[in-house]
Amino acid sequence: MGMPLELNTLIVTKGNEKRVEENVFVLVKQGYRLYPIEIPLDVRKTLNSQSSGTALIKKVIWENETTTITYRLIALNSTN
Amino acid sequence: MGMPLELNTLIVTKGNEKRVEENVFVLVKQGYRLYPIEIPLDVRKTLNSQSSGTALIKKVIWENETTTITYRLIALNSTN
Amino acid sequence: MGMPLELNTLIVTKGNEKRVEENVFVLVKQGYRLYPIEIPLDVRKTLNSQSSGTALIKKVIWENETTTITYRLIALNSTN
Amino acid sequence: MGMPLELNTLIVTKGNEKRVEENVFVLVKQGYRLYPIEIPLDVRKTLNSQSSGTALIKKVIWENETTTITYRLIALNSTN
Repeated sequence: MGMPLELNTLIVTKGNEKRVEENVFVLVKQGYRLYPIEIPLDVRKTLNSQSSGTALIKKVIWENETTTITYRLIALNSTN
Repeated sequence: MGMPLELNTLIVTKGNEKRVEENVFVLVKQGYRLYPIEIPLDVRKTLNSQSSGTALIKKVIWENETTTITYRLIALNSTN
Repeated sequence: MGMPLELNTLIVTKGNEKRVEENVFVLVKQGYRLYPIEIPLDVRKTLNSQSSGTALIKKVIWENETTTITYRLIALNSTN
Repeated sequence: MGMPLELNTLIVTKGNEKRVEENVFVLVKQGYRLYPIEIPLDVRKTLNSQSSGTALIKKVIWENETTTITYRLIALNSTN
């Protein structure tokens, strides 16, 4: 009917991110997800883990029931 | 995790609309749905039925896993 | 043309919230804003102030170019 | 503050589409726009022109304040 999407306010990597540049990572997630772009977001390894840093999403691609985000880490949590 | 929502571009009533004024109806749908507000949308009784008219959504409420829309019919399809 | 909306991942009160119950507040914002519902969000007095707590949005209303949210504070920052 | 986006329920080409395959076109629009993917949408040359056909969006890219959509025409309006 409509288009299912999921509004996300965190980047949860589950360790699946691929580094493409010094502080830039690409992450593929299942389904269509709506992330704010160019807004500081917490990055976590799992939903319930501590924040591992803060990132800005620079690019979002929706295709074939997947969402691919490219994000730049702008701060790391020193406690991690 | 995230918030599931459904992007809708049609009003599918399934006959559940309640008339509240001459051309104004309230419809409750399950789940959180994102509808464009104040944009002309097709109104249909079922997803695959002919358009029964065109409406503007005037109000959207999200609460308790439901979406309640109030819409004003602005045109009726004469073939219906 | 389309419907302008703003994706928000924080509750920025600017001191405009109205208490309606012990930990429940109502806040009216200009424009149509998309907030995640039932997801823990930071509450701040201004965009750049420290977090004053964490809340769950329980209800969102879009009408007349405004967004009205009802949120329940679930944690207060003790440093504030 | 938040992320401005525009919810779109039509594809308005303004003649800027580029054909990349028989019935597949790429169109770049300013700003971040939320389009339903894999849902039949009207295609129009201008907002107020007649529908020139129906398309399915297959891919959406958000980057650098632009939205790039790839869509497949699935029906043409014979009156055009």
